[in-house]
Amino acid sequence: MNFQQQTLVQTRPPLFKVQPLQTGIDLVERQSVTWDEPLPLDSGASLAPFTLAYEAYGELNATRDNAILILHALSGDAHVAGRHHPSDRKLGWWDGLVGPGRAFDTDRYFVICSNVIGSCMGSTGPSSIDPDTGRPYGARLPVITIGDMVRAQARLLDHLGIERLHAVAGGSMGGFQALEWATAYPERVNGVIAIASSARSSPQTIAWNSIGRRAIMSDPRWRGGDYYDQETPFDGLALARMIGHVTYLSEPSLEAKCGRRMLHSADGPQFTLESEFQVESYLDYQGATFNERFDANAYLYITKAMDYWDLPGRYGSLEAAFARSQSSFLLLSFSGDWLYPPGESQAIAAALQRVNRPVSHITIQSEAGHDAFLLEHDVQGSMIEAFLDTL
Amino acid sequence: MNFQQQTLVQTRPPLFKVQPLQTGIDLVERQSVTWDEPLPLDSGASLAPFTLAYEAYGELNATRDNAILILHALSGDAHVAGRHHPSDRKLGWWDGLVGPGRAFDTDRYFVICSNVIGSCMGSTGPSSIDPDTGRPYGARLPVITIGDMVRAQARLLDHLGIERLHAVAGGSMGGFQALEWATAYPERVNGVIAIASSARSSPQTIAWNSIGRRAIMSDPRWRGGDYYDQETPFDGLALARMIGHVTYLSEPSLEAKCGRRMLHSADGPQFTLESEFQVESYLDYQGATFNERFDANAYLYITKAMDYWDLPGRYGSLEAAFARSQSSFLLLSFSGDWLYPPGESQAIAAALQRVNRPVSHITIQSEAGHDAFLLEHDVQGSMIEAFLDTL
Repeated sequence: MNFQQQTLVQTRPPLFKVQPLQTGIDLVERQSVTWDEPLPLDSGASLAPFTLAYEAYGELNATRDNAILILHALSGDAHVAGRHHPSDRKLGWWDGLVGPGRAFDTDRYFVICSNVIGSCMGSTGPSSIDPDTGRPYGARLPVITIGDMVRAQARLLDHLGIERLHAVAGGSMGGFQALEWATAYPERVNGVIAIASSARSSPQTIAWNSIGRRAIMSDPRWRGGDYYDQETPFDGLALARMIGHVTYLSEPSLEAKCGRRMLHSADGPQFTLESEFQVESYLDYQGATFNERFDANAYLYITKAMDYWDLPGRYGSLEAAFARSQSSFLLLSFSGDWLYPPGESQAIAAALQRVNRPVSHITIQSEAGHDAFLLEHDVQGSMIEAFLDTL
Repeated sequence: MNFQQQTLVQTRPPLFKVQPLQTGIDLVERQSVTWDEPLPLDSGASLAPFTLAYEAYGELNATRDNAILILHALSGDAHVAGRHHPSDRKLGWWDGLVGPGRAFDTDRYFVICSNVIGSCMGSTGPSSIDPDTGRPYGARLPVITIGDMVRAQARLLDHLGIERLHAVAGGSMGGFQALEWATAYPERVNGVIAIASSARSSPQTIAWNSIGRRAIMSDPRWRGGDYYDQETPFDGLALARMIGHVTYLSEPSLEAKCGRRMLHSADGPQFTLESEFQVESYLDYQGATFNERFDANAYLYITKAMDYWDLPGRYGSLEAAFARSQSSFLLLSFSGDWLYPPGESQAIAAALQRVNRPVSHITIQSEAGHDAFLLEHDVQGSMIEAFLDTL
């Protein structure tokens, strides 16, 4: 396959409804490692002890050179494929791409998906116990960065005995981490796959994240971050998620999902200030279910890490950042993604070309918005599979 | 001037900073009329008494056929041009377009700018006294629609002795009202100018409005809308405004205004959860100043009126809606407006053409986002002036 700059036009219907998938993965367990040795942070603080959660699929080969590290987005976790329990109705978040015979082929590769520090999904984060006080850190956890997340993941690779990765891959904030791997640990990465991503958070991304944080912090139940033995800041986190959710979708996808349909359409408009359009109840639902699985403080910390993300700022220029890298790059973007539009990936591709690094950037035609990286399995899969073969 | 479908490329710098303007208007006073006769509302309820605030510029001629009605957007008011007090540092919101020799030439036209019912800017709205209780309506004000707003404005024209308008004009929600005028009172309007507008609120617009409303209504200080003698829901209204503000700007305009600059850039990142980027403090400021001039309940009512806006839904199709009209239309849109993108105006233009109504749709190249209708005076002005001459 020849990787050129191209736009693929999909002819099948947009994948708003993901086809029911048969997972190729047996039951999987979340694992974790805890280190007592402090993790130095970009802020100058350090974190000890710290724990990183991960999942692993397939087998590490004898030469230990078939490992692929997958990294997740803002609200994701290490559960990238399969089920934890036979009764799980939901599969891992990239199950369509990870498994025997799939793009990240677990018959060939040892696939690791690592959580991030700052998270509430099994790694050290604001809900973890602060050893100094015996109580949850809350807002006393040091602020972390994408660099800190990756520094912790490097410890995980050391622990697993993996010197060099066949590839590192992720979408959205997972792409930030993949690019951080390429520049902070250039000698440890053969191939980098960054999807629907960017080399820095734009002012608009910072704006949305900041409004979400303000919604959480102005919820009286936030209580300065110390709410773990009380009611949680449900409304604030719901608002933050609702804002985020709209930015993950495109106008056509909202039109297809909800249009202007009303909940009680047979009776016409209800002339009420309450939720009445389907799009309103859809967002209400997103806000409520997010509260069931995510911690408001973790939302603060992870969005802040995203806001600090600025490769060209840190190295002086994107070219200077990538001059350090020793990897080949596959960049995928989506035409309908207005949060991390194709131009962001294009800027990365242009910088990589200027420093003579091998790079392919493909923009996939999709109306699924930013969320396309979680939905458009077929086209992404074929690109990823071919790229991994070339490494 | 030949009005064709075209895109004008501006070569001057984007107008993020409006040039200091010399107003052409002497001091102006806000006026108002109150009616005892009930105003029937689309909900089936009615409103009595009700008041409408307006401002007027220029002179109504003897034949009473030189009146132009200007209508404002969500957070606007009747103060379209000039100053209320000699010490006012801020001019009316469209001062660059309204005055002697300007596009809406007050030497030739009698220009009226009407507020809307539901507002907090001098007309009957949720902060008005409910005659049944002697206390502010709060959330007990009946829900209103764009149709109700325009029905009240028709009373104002009756009061002023104006049978037929030379033109009706507005941007954003002001454009909704202009289109409502064209379809509800076709015999009263010669020309319709709808800028950065739409024939219906899209699901995405409803989503943003709905999240703003939820921010207000989940603020404990909202108190079901009865906060007028207490602290107001500052945080909720600030959040709603911040969300709205980001949707009014484009990514390039946020980049130009704030970029990724930090407040304490000399000291580098502060590694704090608090506001640190300029874009954050910029939005904080927008939220705070909006609280000084706007009522949270009015924000609920007006955004709800916007959400109900659906010309094709009400008449069966856009063509059916416009088959009623007897006006000529000028539609202006802006290339960088992602809230009401040019495609929305294009859909209106196409429907008007299908029912053989005279229409010109011009997309103006601008990076100022939706707010361009408040900023790009020069190009808009020349289009408007020429259109008014053709009527």
